[in-house]
Amino acid sequence: MASEYISIRNLRFLLHEVFHAAQLQRYDRYQGYDQDAIDLTLGAARQLADQYLFPHYREMDKQKAYFENGQVHVPACVRPGIKALADGGWIAGPDDIDFGGQQMPLSLVNAGLAIFYAANGNLASNAFLTQGAANLIRTFASEALQRQYIPRMYSGEWQGTMALTEPQAGSSLSDITSSATPTPEGPYLIRGQKIFISGGDHNAVDNVVHLLLARIDGAPAGAKGISLFVVPKLREENGQLVSNDVTTAGIYGKMGQKGYVAAHLMLGEQGRCQGYLVGEPHKGLSYMFQMMNEARIGTGIMAAGTASGAYYASLQYARERAQGRHPSNKDVTLPPVLIIEHADVRRMLLFQKAVVEGSYSLLMQCSQYADIARCDTGQAAEDAHLLLELLTPIAKSYPSEFGIQAVSAGMQVLGGAGYTDDFPLEQYYRDIRVNAIYEGTTTIHGIDLLGRKITLNKGRASQLLAAEIQQTLASAQSLPQLSPLSEALAHASGRLQEVTDHLLQVAANESPEAFLADATLYLEMFSYVVLGWQWLRQATVAAERLPQAASPDEQRFYQSKLQTARYFMAYELVKTDSLHRRLLSPDRITLETDPELFM
Amino acid sequence: MASEYISIRNLRFLLHEVFHAAQLQRYDRYQGYDQDAIDLTLGAARQLADQYLFPHYREMDKQKAYFENGQVHVPACVRPGIKALADGGWIAGPDDIDFGGQQMPLSLVNAGLAIFYAANGNLASNAFLTQGAANLIRTFASEALQRQYIPRMYSGEWQGTMALTEPQAGSSLSDITSSATPTPEGPYLIRGQKIFISGGDHNAVDNVVHLLLARIDGAPAGAKGISLFVVPKLREENGQLVSNDVTTAGIYGKMGQKGYVAAHLMLGEQGRCQGYLVGEPHKGLSYMFQMMNEARIGTGIMAAGTASGAYYASLQYARERAQGRHPSNKDVTLPPVLIIEHADVRRMLLFQKAVVEGSYSLLMQCSQYADIARCDTGQAAEDAHLLLELLTPIAKSYPSEFGIQAVSAGMQVLGGAGYTDDFPLEQYYRDIRVNAIYEGTTTIHGIDLLGRKITLNKGRASQLLAAEIQQTLASAQSLPQLSPLSEALAHASGRLQEVTDHLLQVAANESPEAFLADATLYLEMFSYVVLGWQWLRQATVAAERLPQAASPDEQRFYQSKLQTARYFMAYELVKTDSLHRRLLSPDRITLETDPELFM
Repeated sequence: MASEYISIRNLRFLLHEVFHAAQLQRYDRYQGYDQDAIDLTLGAARQLADQYLFPHYREMDKQKAYFENGQVHVPACVRPGIKALADGGWIAGPDDIDFGGQQMPLSLVNAGLAIFYAANGNLASNAFLTQGAANLIRTFASEALQRQYIPRMYSGEWQGTMALTEPQAGSSLSDITSSATPTPEGPYLIRGQKIFISGGDHNAVDNVVHLLLARIDGAPAGAKGISLFVVPKLREENGQLVSNDVTTAGIYGKMGQKGYVAAHLMLGEQGRCQGYLVGEPHKGLSYMFQMMNEARIGTGIMAAGTASGAYYASLQYARERAQGRHPSNKDVTLPPVLIIEHADVRRMLLFQKAVVEGSYSLLMQCSQYADIARCDTGQAAEDAHLLLELLTPIAKSYPSEFGIQAVSAGMQVLGGAGYTDDFPLEQYYRDIRVNAIYEGTTTIHGIDLLGRKITLNKGRASQLLAAEIQQTLASAQSLPQLSPLSEALAHASGRLQEVTDHLLQVAANESPEAFLADATLYLEMFSYVVLGWQWLRQATVAAERLPQAASPDEQRFYQSKLQTARYFMAYELVKTDSLHRRLLSPDRITLETDPELFM
Repeated sequence: MASEYISIRNLRFLLHEVFHAAQLQRYDRYQGYDQDAIDLTLGAARQLADQYLFPHYREMDKQKAYFENGQVHVPACVRPGIKALADGGWIAGPDDIDFGGQQMPLSLVNAGLAIFYAANGNLASNAFLTQGAANLIRTFASEALQRQYIPRMYSGEWQGTMALTEPQAGSSLSDITSSATPTPEGPYLIRGQKIFISGGDHNAVDNVVHLLLARIDGAPAGAKGISLFVVPKLREENGQLVSNDVTTAGIYGKMGQKGYVAAHLMLGEQGRCQGYLVGEPHKGLSYMFQMMNEARIGTGIMAAGTASGAYYASLQYARERAQGRHPSNKDVTLPPVLIIEHADVRRMLLFQKAVVEGSYSLLMQCSQYADIARCDTGQAAEDAHLLLELLTPIAKSYPSEFGIQAVSAGMQVLGGAGYTDDFPLEQYYRDIRVNAIYEGTTTIHGIDLLGRKITLNKGRASQLLAAEIQQTLASAQSLPQLSPLSEALAHASGRLQEVTDHLLQVAANESPEAFLADATLYLEMFSYVVLGWQWLRQATVAAERLPQAASPDEQRFYQSKLQTARYFMAYELVKTDSLHRRLLSPDRITLETDPELFM
């Protein structure tokens, strides 16, 4: 087993040196979170992850969750792991101090999440699902529901879930058919099926609280007829927990994340499943978007964490494994060199590092916007919210899609060994794949970005991002060694603008279908530019700090950042050239391919 | 389970319409293989695959191979499957009629292999390893060894293997240390370890015959001191099969291909392991290259087959699953459309189809060169051999690398369902990954292509390929509807030439390290051009035949080819733009990244 899974130095670089997280103390809510407090919190998170999470990553895959006699069993490490996260204050953390929380900045919560997910996302995600579900109750449900459910969710005794997907409604939530029938007593009677429910049922908790979408009888069709309910597995009756007629039909046999349950639930088969309305009727989908947007950032952090674990595992192998010789000296009587000496192994390691650290940078950027949107007021809050909305599809999809490729590169570094279960790469490879599907497939996020986010508030979100990139370019200008990087970013960013303008013309003159046909490729191009921006931000800080680095280790840290930024621009950002050409093409090949032509 | 895994119509298109396989009858060896005979053989292969292979694909993954009390157990379907392939003449097929074979053209053998590997590569590969091992004995070993081993290999009773890799010698075969000590009686005494030996030991055969590389005591260091031996698991002594001191230490727990064994072998631990020299001492590696080159084409066919199975499984899902609505009509009271109606699903299907059928086209092209190299004489044979050598790295790596991506796209078409074992996509995803590692990793093939093949025979191989591409462009010229495709290919091909010229300058002026640093990216760029060439070849035939198509089905077949060719040029070949820019860059980032900068 590899001994490292995430760089705390890098998280500190992002939090303090790039994003100045301690300055969030300007908001009353975050008083006390100075640099020391943040570092202490990170240290505690690392210790928790070292003890309760990372040692069980492989074991959860081998033991996996299973379904027997109507019960879902998860490995024994899950209960103490959830409890440790709860006791460490990580489930309640973002909430008000008055409500048992610590008013932690989201930037810090997400940095902790980065540690936990890199250590063992399959365990930690149970706790963070609970956090999101509790937060949804906190924001929109009655005080009574809050008092009834949240304490035992924050203590880790009860699991929270988001129960959206149904057999006929996956990507298309407007087709949800689960029903909610009002009763004179108040609760609704819920009937329906929910599938792929993460954490949906298991024996590491004492109860499960579903945040569930259903349609009140007679509600309008589509998204505007969907309401949000709290639906517990066990409900309280006279101080006792009794069955709420939520049964588990089974759990899915997944390619990866085998210790983390995805359940198939039957609700109200006996007509006794009670649901408690959250907020107003028919507004459920808009409420749920709060949790979905958090979960999208969480999915990005999970993917980046898996890629981070894989990077360190492959780096360790590359430092220990000797094989082959340099092209200019193939003398077979000399010992072979370590494979980290080979250019292509370095390319694969740089690729992994660029994906992992670029993703974390973007995720911290989004976390900062979330903090400002939460705590600031007026235009500042609104702008931060718009930027977060615009960047969420990237923050979810880039770590997922490129994390998959990064882990694959990590496996390739190990050669045949990487394909075997003697090393963790094969698990990382299986585990990370689902992130491109969770919380909206990449296709959905492409359509969200191009079809909705780009034109949000008459394009203000896009203008704000352009201004942010411009500011980063301006900051880099005083550092002549960065000019090749700046030029690359400015070039790619200009080309992205050309593509955006062109596609908006297509929307105006052709059809919505033509406009959105290559939205996935647009998302990819947009992602390169956004990640290029993050790499230039990081490179600028590194270049400024390098001359005053306090030790050789610190020097290497900054040099490493600069080198990885160079790699990103030269090997990754350059792919926008081809995407630019493709996206300007008037060809509508995918639209024109009749289904009968697939054979 | 999906009901389809490969298109026989497509194989017939390639064999008859594109490559005119029946014209191979011009060689005496292949007399009788007219179009009908070829079609009958394909039909028989399909029937065999339908009966003995495809129904067991999922089952072999669930039951998997296991090691218990020193024995390797494989699922029960393996023995009858190998026997069916042997009885069908597929192991002996390419050999002389006088030696029990059928003098089958390699083009036809490989078309059969395509069917078997698409149906169940994890079973069929056992038989084809035996074919390659037998062929190696046939070509280089004494008549006595041939008579002793080949009949029971051809009958499927004995498994053949290639035993190359050792714990310290994977990509770098020159570091092999297994030893061979001469004895007065003739046989050598073998000592050493071999790892990752496919088919290396299992209970579906009665014996295993290793084609093994080892170093005769006192042999020179490096590749020129390696000899080839036949090393059976059981040797004949007085008409009895007795242990030959080859023991299995275990088998690898692989992420995929779980029913197909990769064994760890210990040879001569008791000093009683006999090996029989094949050919001359110290020439073993050059002999082994015959089997390795065949195995590389075989790996390409295996990867393409896995991607083919995945394509049909995802296509079936896309035709059956309804979800969402068109961007221009989102009326939620209308029923959802089939997902094959969505542009991005079509893009993912077209990508899969382009990878699968493009790969098969290239693999058939290579098979034709192999047939000409085998049967023709003089310049024609030599040129065909050079083209085969040049294209082998592509024929191995493109289906492997892009097959991985194609299967991933197939999984994505299914969304969450694709990640579960309710569908075969997750197995295809795990199984195909190893092909980018088998028979030389992609890195190794990049270095082989750029460092060796491009300059082979003073660049004659490259010149021949350029002439072939030119000829395809000339054939397409009479079809004006193909001119966008031709222009795209000519453009990309010209840019590849620029890159090649540039890199040869780097080799001359800079260093071997700089020359080869981005060899993997060069391989990728080269592959796009080669596949573009194959797609233009196919499109040309399709465009010529379309007007005379005999039925609506036939019409759709040709239209489908044209549409997929358009897709390839517009979405895939265009990626050469970015590679062109990257490969012309004077940056040497990977070489300059000190190992200490990875942190």
